[in-house]
Amino acid sequence: MIYVIGIGPRGIDEITPKALKALNDCDIISGYSRYIELIRSHFPGKIFMSYSMREELKRCNDALALSREHKNVALISSGDAGVYGMAGLMLEVASGSGEDVQIISGITAANSCASILGAPLMNDYVTISLSDLLTDWSIIERRLICACEGDFVICIYNPASNHRPDNFRRACKILIHHGKSESTIAGYVRNAGREGEFSRITTLGEIMNEDIDMLCTVIIGNSKTYVSNGKMITPRGYKL
Amino acid sequence: MIYVIGIGPRGIDEITPKALKALNDCDIISGYSRYIELIRSHFPGKIFMSYSMREELKRCNDALALSREHKNVALISSGDAGVYGMAGLMLEVASGSGEDVQIISGITAANSCASILGAPLMNDYVTISLSDLLTDWSIIERRLICACEGDFVICIYNPASNHRPDNFRRACKILIHHGKSESTIAGYVRNAGREGEFSRITTLGEIMNEDIDMLCTVIIGNSKTYVSNGKMITPRGYKL
Repeated sequence: MIYVIGIGPRGIDEITPKALKALNDCDIISGYSRYIELIRSHFPGKIFMSYSMREELKRCNDALALSREHKNVALISSGDAGVYGMAGLMLEVASGSGEDVQIISGITAANSCASILGAPLMNDYVTISLSDLLTDWSIIERRLICACEGDFVICIYNPASNHRPDNFRRACKILIHHGKSESTIAGYVRNAGREGEFSRITTLGEIMNEDIDMLCTVIIGNSKTYVSNGKMITPRGYKL
Repeated sequence: MIYVIGIGPRGIDEITPKALKALNDCDIISGYSRYIELIRSHFPGKIFMSYSMREELKRCNDALALSREHKNVALISSGDAGVYGMAGLMLEVASGSGEDVQIISGITAANSCASILGAPLMNDYVTISLSDLLTDWSIIERRLICACEGDFVICIYNPASNHRPDNFRRACKILIHHGKSESTIAGYVRNAGREGEFSRITTLGEIMNEDIDMLCTVIIGNSKTYVSNGKMITPRGYKL
Protein backbone atom coordinates (compact mmCIF):
# COMPACT_ATOMS: atom_id res chain seq x y z
CA MET A 1 0.00 0.00 0.00
CA ILE A 2 1.27 3.43 -1.00
CA TYR A 3 -0.06 6.71 0.37
CA VAL A 4 0.94 9.89 -1.39
CA ILE A 5 0.52 12.57 1.24
CA GLY A 6 0.55 16.36 1.11
CA ILE A 7 1.98 17.63 4.38
CA GLY A 8 0.91 21.25 3.81
CA PRO A 9 3.19 24.22 4.18
CA ARG A 10 4.71 24.01 7.57
CA GLY A 11 5.06 20.60 9.00
CA ILE A 12 2.99 19.21 11.77
CA ASP A 13 0.35 21.82 12.61
CA GLU A 14 -1.05 22.06 9.11
CA ILE A 15 -1.14 18.32 8.39
CA THR A 16 -4.71 17.01 8.41
CA PRO A 17 -5.75 14.27 10.85
CA LYS A 18 -6.41 12.03 7.84
CA ALA A 19 -2.83 12.50 6.62
CA LEU A 20 -1.42 12.07 10.13
CA LYS A 21 -3.26 8.79 10.53
CA ALA A 22 -1.86 7.51 7.23
CA LEU A 23 1.67 8.57 8.24
CA ASN A 24 1.26 6.74 11.55
CA ASP A 25 -0.06 3.63 9.78
CA CYS A 26 2.98 3.43 7.50
CA ASP A 27 6.23 1.55 8.03
CA ILE A 28 8.27 3.87 5.85
CA ILE A 29 8.11 7.62 5.19
CA SER A 30 9.81 8.67 1.99
CA GLY A 31 10.44 12.02 0.30
CA TYR A 32 12.69 14.95 -0.51
CA SER A 33 15.18 15.41 2.34
CA ARG A 34 14.03 18.95 3.20
CA TYR A 35 10.46 17.78 3.81
CA ILE A 36 11.51 14.67 5.70
CA GLU A 37 13.39 16.93 8.14
CA LEU A 38 10.23 19.03 8.68
CA ILE A 39 8.35 16.06 10.14
CA ARG A 40 10.93 13.44 11.18
CA SER A 41 10.87 14.18 14.93
CA HIS A 42 7.11 13.64 15.09
CA PHE A 43 7.25 10.04 13.91
CA PRO A 44 9.68 8.12 16.12
CA GLY A 45 10.16 4.50 15.15
CA LYS A 46 9.51 4.99 11.45
CA ILE A 47 12.00 4.23 8.72
CA PHE A 48 12.81 7.38 6.72
CA MET A 49 14.04 7.46 3.16
CA SER A 50 15.50 10.85 2.17
CA TYR A 51 16.10 11.77 -1.44
CA SER A 52 17.64 14.72 -3.20
CA MET A 53 15.77 16.84 -5.74
CA ARG A 54 15.43 15.35 -9.21
CA GLU A 55 15.17 11.84 -7.79
CA GLU A 56 11.40 11.83 -8.19
CA LEU A 57 11.27 8.74 -10.39
CA LYS A 58 13.57 6.81 -8.07
CA ARG A 59 11.34 7.67 -5.10
CA CYS A 60 8.34 6.23 -6.92
CA ASN A 61 10.13 3.11 -8.11
CA ASP A 62 11.44 2.47 -4.60
CA ALA A 63 7.99 3.00 -3.08
CA LEU A 64 6.48 0.54 -5.55
CA ALA A 65 9.14 -2.07 -4.79
CA LEU A 66 8.56 -1.71 -1.04
CA SER A 67 4.80 -1.91 -1.45
CA ARG A 68 5.28 -5.17 -3.33
CA GLU A 69 7.15 -6.46 -0.27
CA HIS A 70 3.96 -5.72 1.72
CA LYS A 71 5.28 -2.57 3.34
CA ASN A 72 3.06 0.46 3.81
CA VAL A 73 4.87 3.45 2.34
CA ALA A 74 4.05 7.14 2.73
CA LEU A 75 5.49 9.25 -0.06
CA ILE A 76 5.30 12.88 1.03
CA SER A 77 5.18 16.20 -0.82
CA SER A 78 5.05 19.62 0.76
CA GLY A 79 1.77 21.43 0.16
CA ASP A 80 -0.61 19.19 -1.79
CA ALA A 81 0.91 16.14 -3.48
CA GLY A 82 -1.51 16.59 -6.37
CA VAL A 83 -0.23 20.07 -7.34
CA TYR A 84 3.22 19.84 -8.98
CA GLY A 85 3.93 17.12 -6.38
CA MET A 86 4.42 13.34 -6.33
CA ALA A 87 0.82 12.13 -6.86
CA GLY A 88 0.76 11.95 -10.65
CA LEU A 89 4.15 10.31 -11.11
CA MET A 90 3.39 7.72 -8.43
CA LEU A 91 0.10 6.81 -10.14
CA GLU A 92 1.92 6.57 -13.46
CA VAL A 93 4.67 4.34 -12.04
CA ALA A 94 2.23 2.10 -10.17
CA SER A 95 -0.17 1.80 -13.08
CA GLY A 96 -0.76 -1.84 -13.96
CA SER A 97 1.16 -3.08 -10.91
CA GLY A 98 -1.95 -3.93 -8.93
CA GLU A 99 -0.57 -2.00 -5.95
CA ASP A 100 -3.02 0.31 -4.23
CA VAL A 101 -2.15 4.04 -4.31
CA GLN A 102 -4.14 6.49 -2.21
CA ILE A 103 -3.72 10.25 -2.54
CA ILE A 104 -4.29 12.34 0.61
CA SER A 105 -4.67 16.08 0.15
CA GLY A 106 -2.70 18.80 1.88
CA ILE A 107 -2.89 22.57 1.80
CA THR A 108 -1.15 23.75 -1.35
CA ALA A 109 1.11 26.82 -1.51
CA ALA A 110 -1.49 28.90 -3.36
CA ASN A 111 -3.84 28.65 -0.39
CA SER A 112 -1.31 28.95 2.43
CA CYS A 113 0.34 31.97 0.79
CA ALA A 114 -3.02 33.57 0.02
CA SER A 115 -4.01 33.33 3.69
CA ILE A 116 -0.80 35.12 4.70
CA LEU A 117 -1.22 37.89 2.10
CA GLY A 118 -4.95 38.39 2.78
CA ALA A 119 -7.56 37.06 0.35
CA PRO A 120 -6.15 37.39 -3.17
CA LEU A 121 -7.77 34.20 -4.55
CA MET A 122 -11.40 35.17 -3.99
CA ASN A 123 -12.03 35.25 -7.72
CA ASP A 124 -11.00 33.02 -10.63
CA TYR A 125 -7.28 32.22 -10.69
CA VAL A 126 -4.63 30.21 -12.48
CA THR A 127 -1.62 28.44 -11.09
CA ILE A 128 1.43 28.38 -13.34
CA SER A 129 4.82 26.83 -12.61
CA LEU A 130 7.76 28.69 -14.12
CA SER A 131 9.98 25.61 -14.04
CA ASP A 132 10.90 24.80 -17.62
CA LEU A 133 12.62 21.54 -16.69
CA LEU A 134 9.50 19.55 -17.59
CA THR A 135 7.43 22.07 -19.60
CA ASP A 136 8.66 23.99 -22.65
CA TRP A 137 9.00 27.70 -22.02
CA SER A 138 6.82 28.37 -25.08
CA ILE A 139 3.90 26.66 -23.31
CA ILE A 140 4.53 28.59 -20.09
CA GLU A 141 4.63 31.82 -22.07
CA ARG A 142 1.36 31.04 -23.84
CA ARG A 143 -0.30 30.31 -20.49
CA LEU A 144 0.94 33.58 -18.99
CA ILE A 145 -0.56 35.44 -21.96
CA CYS A 146 -3.90 33.61 -21.64
CA ALA A 147 -3.95 34.36 -17.91
CA CYS A 148 -3.54 38.06 -18.75
CA GLU A 149 -6.26 38.00 -21.36
CA GLY A 150 -8.72 36.39 -18.93
CA ASP A 151 -7.85 38.87 -16.14
CA PHE A 152 -7.21 35.92 -13.85
CA VAL A 153 -5.39 36.21 -10.54
CA ILE A 154 -2.10 34.41 -11.20
CA CYS A 155 -0.39 32.21 -8.63
CA ILE A 156 3.18 31.39 -9.59
CA TYR A 157 4.87 28.22 -8.32
CA ASN A 158 8.60 27.63 -8.75
CA PRO A 159 9.25 31.25 -9.74
CA ALA A 160 13.03 30.84 -9.92
CA SER A 161 15.90 28.52 -9.09
CA ASN A 162 19.67 28.59 -9.33
CA HIS A 163 19.45 27.05 -12.78
CA ARG A 164 16.92 29.55 -14.09
CA PRO A 165 17.31 32.75 -12.09
CA ASP A 166 15.69 34.96 -14.73
CA ASN A 167 12.42 33.14 -15.39
CA PHE A 168 10.46 35.26 -12.93
CA ARG A 169 11.53 38.62 -14.36
CA ARG A 170 10.91 37.24 -17.84
CA ALA A 171 7.41 36.17 -16.83
CA CYS A 172 6.59 39.58 -15.32
CA LYS A 173 7.71 41.30 -18.51
CA ILE A 174 5.48 39.04 -20.59
CA LEU A 175 2.50 39.87 -18.36
CA ILE A 176 3.15 43.61 -18.65
CA HIS A 177 3.70 43.37 -22.41
CA HIS A 178 0.30 41.66 -22.73
CA GLY A 179 -1.63 44.28 -20.90
CA LYS A 180 -1.32 43.56 -17.19
CA SER A 181 -0.74 46.97 -15.62
CA GLU A 182 2.52 47.56 -13.77
CA SER A 183 0.40 48.89 -10.92
CA THR A 184 -1.38 45.52 -10.49
CA ILE A 185 -1.10 44.44 -6.86
CA ALA A 186 1.31 41.53 -6.40
CA GLY A 187 2.56 39.76 -3.30
CA TYR A 188 4.88 36.97 -2.35
CA VAL A 189 5.65 34.72 0.57
CA ARG A 190 8.94 33.00 1.30
CA ASN A 191 8.94 29.97 3.62
CA ALA A 192 5.18 30.11 4.19
CA GLY A 193 4.41 28.88 7.69
CA ARG A 194 8.03 27.92 8.36
CA GLU A 195 10.92 29.46 10.25
CA GLY A 196 12.01 32.59 8.42
CA GLU A 197 8.56 33.29 6.93
CA PHE A 198 8.61 36.56 5.03
CA SER A 199 5.91 38.22 2.96
CA ARG A 200 5.55 41.46 1.06
CA ILE A 201 2.78 43.12 -0.94
CA THR A 202 3.85 45.40 -3.75
CA THR A 203 3.04 45.84 -7.47
CA LEU A 204 3.80 43.85 -10.60
CA GLY A 205 6.17 46.60 -11.74
CA GLU A 206 8.10 46.48 -8.47
CA ILE A 207 8.08 42.77 -7.69
CA MET A 208 10.51 42.14 -10.55
CA ASN A 209 13.19 43.81 -8.43
CA GLU A 210 12.52 41.71 -5.33
CA ASP A 211 14.67 38.75 -4.36
CA ILE A 212 12.32 35.99 -5.54
CA ASP A 213 13.84 32.53 -5.13
CA MET A 214 12.71 28.90 -5.17
CA LEU A 215 11.30 29.15 -1.65
CA CYS A 216 8.82 31.83 -2.74
CA THR A 217 5.27 31.65 -4.07
CA VAL A 218 4.00 34.73 -5.88
CA ILE A 219 0.41 35.90 -6.32
CA ILE A 220 -0.34 38.59 -8.90
CA GLY A 221 -3.80 40.11 -8.61
CA ASN A 222 -6.46 40.73 -11.23
CA SER A 223 -7.44 44.23 -12.34
CA LYS A 224 -9.67 44.67 -9.26
CA THR A 225 -7.26 43.47 -6.58
CA TYR A 226 -6.45 46.14 -4.02
CA VAL A 227 -4.69 46.60 -0.68
CA SER A 228 -6.53 47.51 2.49
CA ASN A 229 -5.05 47.53 5.99
CA GLY A 230 -1.93 45.81 4.66
CA LYS A 231 -3.93 42.92 3.18
CA MET A 232 -4.21 41.96 -0.49
CA ILE A 233 -7.87 41.55 -1.41
CA THR A 234 -9.45 40.43 -4.67
CA PRO A 235 -13.15 41.31 -4.39
CA ARG A 236 -15.63 38.49 -4.93
CA GLY A 237 -18.16 41.06 -6.06
CA TYR A 238 -20.36 41.64 -3.03
CA LYS A 239 -21.86 45.10 -2.63
CA LEU A 240 -20.87 46.39 0.81
CA MET B 1 -10.60 38.76 17.25
CA ILE B 2 -12.00 37.12 14.13
CA TYR B 3 -10.68 33.92 12.60
CA VAL B 4 -11.84 33.00 9.11
CA ILE B 5 -11.34 29.28 8.90
CA GLY B 6 -11.46 26.79 6.05
CA ILE B 7 -12.75 23.49 7.42
CA GLY B 8 -11.79 21.49 4.33
CA PRO B 9 -14.12 19.12 2.53
CA ARG B 10 -15.46 16.75 5.10
CA GLY B 11 -15.63 18.03 8.56
CA ILE B 12 -13.38 16.97 11.33
CA ASP B 13 -10.74 14.66 9.86
CA GLU B 14 -9.55 17.10 7.23
CA ILE B 15 -9.41 20.18 9.47
CA THR B 16 -5.82 21.13 10.25
CA PRO B 17 -4.60 21.24 13.86
CA LYS B 18 -4.04 24.98 13.41
CA ALA B 19 -7.69 25.47 12.43
CA LEU B 20 -8.91 23.15 15.21
CA LYS B 21 -6.96 25.14 17.78
CA ALA B 22 -8.51 28.38 16.55
CA LEU B 23 -12.01 26.84 16.66
CA ASN B 24 -11.38 25.69 20.22
CA ASP B 25 -10.07 29.12 21.22
CA CYS B 26 -13.23 30.86 20.00
CA ASP B 27 -16.39 31.66 21.89
CA ILE B 28 -18.61 31.63 18.83
CA ILE B 29 -18.58 29.57 15.64
CA SER B 30 -20.48 31.15 12.79
CA GLY B 31 -21.29 30.10 9.22
CA TYR B 32 -23.64 28.64 6.65
CA SER B 33 -25.98 26.19 8.40
CA ARG B 34 -24.88 23.18 6.33
CA TYR B 35 -21.24 23.61 7.38
CA ILE B 36 -22.12 24.33 11.00
CA GLU B 37 -23.91 20.96 11.11
CA LEU B 38 -20.79 19.20 9.78
CA ILE B 39 -18.76 20.20 12.84
CA ARG B 40 -21.22 21.15 15.59
CA SER B 41 -20.96 17.90 17.58
CA HIS B 42 -17.18 18.25 17.88
CA PHE B 43 -17.32 21.57 19.74
CA PRO B 44 -19.58 21.19 22.78
CA GLY B 45 -20.02 24.35 24.81
CA LYS B 46 -19.56 26.74 21.90
CA ILE B 47 -22.19 29.19 20.72
CA PHE B 48 -23.17 28.49 17.12
CA MET B 49 -24.60 31.02 14.70
CA SER B 50 -26.20 29.41 11.63
CA TYR B 51 -27.01 31.41 8.53
CA SER B 52 -28.73 30.66 5.26
CA MET B 53 -27.05 31.12 1.90
CA ARG B 54 -26.86 34.68 0.62
CA GLU B 55 -26.46 36.02 4.15
CA GLU B 56 -22.71 36.42 3.66
CA LEU B 57 -22.62 40.14 4.41
CA LYS B 58 -24.74 39.69 7.54
CA ARG B 59 -22.37 36.99 8.80
CA CYS B 60 -19.44 39.38 8.45
CA ASN B 61 -21.23 42.34 10.03
CA ASP B 62 -22.32 40.16 12.96
CA ALA B 63 -18.80 38.77 13.39
CA LEU B 64 -17.38 42.29 13.45
CA ALA B 65 -19.93 43.44 16.02
CA LEU B 66 -19.15 40.46 18.27
CA SER B 67 -15.40 40.99 17.92
CA ARG B 68 -15.92 44.58 19.07
CA GLU B 69 -17.59 43.16 22.17
CA HIS B 70 -14.31 41.30 22.81
CA LYS B 71 -15.62 37.94 21.68
CA ASN B 72 -13.44 35.58 19.65
CA VAL B 73 -15.40 34.58 16.58
CA ALA B 74 -14.65 31.79 14.09
CA LEU B 75 -16.29 32.36 10.74
CA ILE B 76 -16.13 29.10 8.80
CA SER B 77 -16.19 28.19 5.12
CA SER B 78 -16.06 24.71 3.66
CA GLY B 79 -12.85 24.01 1.76
CA ASP B 80 -10.54 27.01 1.96
CA ALA B 81 -12.08 30.28 3.12
CA GLY B 82 -9.84 32.15 0.69
CA VAL B 83 -11.26 30.46 -2.44
CA TYR B 84 -14.78 31.73 -3.19
CA GLY B 85 -15.28 31.68 0.61
CA MET B 86 -15.67 34.20 3.44
CA ALA B 87 -12.08 35.50 3.77
CA GLY B 88 -12.23 38.39 1.32
CA LEU B 89 -15.60 39.76 2.39
CA MET B 90 -14.63 39.57 6.07
CA LEU B 91 -11.42 41.53 5.39
CA GLU B 92 -13.42 44.09 3.40
CA VAL B 93 -16.03 44.49 6.14
CA ALA B 94 -13.43 44.70 8.94
CA SER B 95 -11.19 47.10 7.05
CA GLY B 96 -10.57 50.23 9.09
CA SER B 97 -12.29 48.80 12.16
CA GLY B 98 -9.06 48.00 13.95
CA GLU B 99 -10.32 44.48 14.64
CA ASP B 100 -7.80 41.71 13.97
CA VAL B 101 -8.78 39.20 11.26
CA GLN B 102 -6.74 36.06 10.77
CA ILE B 103 -7.26 33.72 7.82
CA ILE B 104 -6.56 30.00 8.39
CA SER B 105 -6.30 27.80 5.31
CA GLY B 106 -8.22 24.64 4.62
CA ILE B 107 -8.15 22.13 1.78
CA THR B 108 -10.08 23.60 -1.12
CA ALA B 109 -12.42 21.57 -3.35
CA ALA B 110 -9.97 21.58 -6.28
CA ASN B 111 -7.47 19.63 -4.21
CA SER B 112 -9.84 17.30 -2.38
CA CYS B 113 -11.65 16.39 -5.60
CA ALA B 114 -8.38 15.94 -7.48
CA SER B 115 -7.19 13.44 -4.87
CA ILE B 116 -10.37 11.42 -5.32
CA LEU B 117 -10.19 11.44 -9.13
CA GLY B 118 -6.44 10.71 -9.25
CA ALA B 119 -3.93 13.44 -10.07
CA PRO B 120 -5.53 15.76 -12.61
CA LEU B 121 -3.91 18.99 -11.30
CA MET B 122 -0.28 18.01 -11.84
CA ASN B 123 0.13 20.69 -14.46
CA ASP B 124 -1.01 24.32 -14.74
CA TYR B 125 -4.69 24.82 -13.99
CA VAL B 126 -7.39 27.42 -13.60
CA THR B 127 -10.27 27.55 -11.19
CA ILE B 128 -13.44 29.17 -12.50
CA SER B 129 -16.74 29.61 -10.68
CA LEU B 130 -19.82 29.36 -12.90
CA SER B 131 -21.94 31.36 -10.46
CA ASP B 132 -23.04 34.51 -12.25
CA LEU B 133 -24.63 36.01 -9.14
CA LEU B 134 -21.52 38.11 -8.47
CA THR B 135 -19.63 37.91 -11.78
CA ASP B 136 -21.06 38.80 -15.20
CA TRP B 137 -21.47 35.80 -17.47
CA SER B 138 -19.49 37.64 -20.17
CA ILE B 139 -16.42 37.57 -17.88
CA ILE B 140 -16.93 33.89 -17.07
CA GLU B 141 -17.22 33.14 -20.78
CA ARG B 142 -14.02 35.03 -21.58
CA ARG B 143 -12.16 33.12 -18.87
CA LEU B 144 -13.41 29.78 -20.18
CA ILE B 145 -12.11 30.72 -23.63
CA CYS B 146 -8.71 31.82 -22.26
CA ALA B 147 -8.47 28.57 -20.27
CA CYS B 148 -9.02 26.66 -23.54
CA GLU B 149 -6.45 28.66 -25.41
CA GLY B 150 -3.83 28.05 -22.71
CA ASP B 151 -4.60 24.30 -22.60
CA PHE B 152 -5.03 24.61 -18.86
CA VAL B 153 -6.66 21.96 -16.72
CA ILE B 154 -9.96 23.58 -15.66
CA CYS B 155 -11.45 23.16 -12.21
CA ILE B 156 -15.05 24.32 -12.06
CA TYR B 157 -16.59 25.50 -8.78
CA ASN B 158 -20.32 26.15 -8.43
CA PRO B 159 -21.13 24.39 -11.72
CA ALA B 160 -24.89 24.70 -11.31
CA SER B 161 -27.66 25.61 -8.93
CA ASN B 162 -31.43 25.65 -8.91
CA HIS B 163 -31.35 29.23 -10.14
CA ARG B 164 -28.97 28.54 -13.00
CA PRO B 165 -29.35 24.88 -13.97
CA ASP B 166 -27.90 25.34 -17.46
CA ASN B 167 -24.63 27.15 -16.75
CA PHE B 168 -22.60 23.97 -16.75
CA ARG B 169 -23.82 22.70 -20.14
CA ARG B 170 -23.37 26.19 -21.51
CA ALA B 171 -19.78 26.27 -20.25
CA CYS B 172 -18.98 22.86 -21.76
CA LYS B 173 -20.31 24.00 -25.12
CA ILE B 174 -18.13 27.13 -25.00
CA LEU B 175 -15.06 24.99 -24.27
CA ILE B 176 -15.83 22.64 -27.17
CA HIS B 177 -16.58 25.54 -29.50
CA HIS B 178 -13.17 27.02 -28.67
CA GLY B 179 -11.18 23.95 -29.45
CA LYS B 180 -11.28 21.72 -26.37
CA SER B 181 -11.85 18.23 -27.77
CA GLU B 182 -15.02 16.39 -26.77
CA SER B 183 -12.77 13.45 -25.92
CA THR B 184 -10.89 15.48 -23.26
CA ILE B 185 -10.95 13.55 -19.99
CA ALA B 186 -13.26 15.14 -17.42
CA GLY B 187 -14.27 14.04 -13.96
CA TYR B 188 -16.48 15.20 -11.14
CA VAL B 189 -17.03 14.57 -7.47
CA ARG B 190 -20.24 15.12 -5.52
CA ASN B 191 -20.02 15.49 -1.74
CA ALA B 192 -16.25 15.06 -1.66
CA GLY B 193 -15.25 13.34 1.58
CA ARG B 194 -18.81 13.42 2.92
CA GLU B 195 -21.63 10.92 3.24
CA GLY B 196 -22.87 10.10 -0.23
CA GLU B 197 -19.55 10.82 -1.94
CA PHE B 198 -19.78 9.98 -5.62
CA SER B 199 -17.24 10.43 -8.39
CA ARG B 200 -17.06 9.62 -12.07
CA ILE B 201 -14.45 10.02 -14.79
CA THR B 202 -15.72 10.51 -18.32
CA THR B 203 -15.14 12.93 -21.20
CA LEU B 204 -16.03 16.55 -21.84
CA GLY B 205 -18.52 15.46 -24.49
CA GLU B 206 -20.26 13.10 -22.08
CA ILE B 207 -20.10 15.06 -18.83
CA MET B 208 -22.68 17.52 -20.17
CA ASN B 209 -25.28 14.78 -19.82
CA GLU B 210 -24.40 13.96 -16.20
CA ASP B 211 -26.42 15.20 -13.26
CA ILE B 212 -24.06 18.01 -12.18
CA ASP B 213 -25.46 20.02 -9.27
CA MET B 214 -24.26 22.54 -6.72
CA LEU B 215 -22.66 19.84 -4.57
CA CYS B 216 -20.30 18.87 -7.41
CA THR B 217 -16.84 20.06 -8.37
CA VAL B 218 -15.75 19.32 -11.94
CA ILE B 219 -12.21 18.94 -13.30
CA ILE B 220 -11.67 19.01 -17.06
CA GLY B 221 -8.24 17.83 -18.17
CA ASN B 222 -5.75 19.40 -20.54
CA SER B 223 -4.91 17.85 -23.93
CA LYS B 224 -2.53 15.35 -22.28
CA THR B 225 -4.77 14.16 -19.44
CA TYR B 226 -5.49 10.43 -19.60
CA VAL B 227 -7.06 7.64 -17.59
CA SER B 228 -5.08 4.75 -16.19
CA ASN B 229 -6.37 2.15 -13.75
CA GLY B 230 -9.49 4.21 -13.24
CA LYS B 231 -7.52 7.30 -12.24
CA MET B 232 -7.42 10.65 -14.04
CA ILE B 233 -3.81 11.70 -14.56
CA THR B 234 -2.39 14.88 -16.05
CA PRO B 235 1.29 14.18 -16.70
CA ARG B 236 3.83 16.54 -15.15
CA GLY B 237 6.20 15.67 -17.95
CA TYR B 238 8.56 13.10 -16.42
CA LYS B 239 10.01 10.50 -18.77
CA LEU B 240 9.19 7.09 -17.32
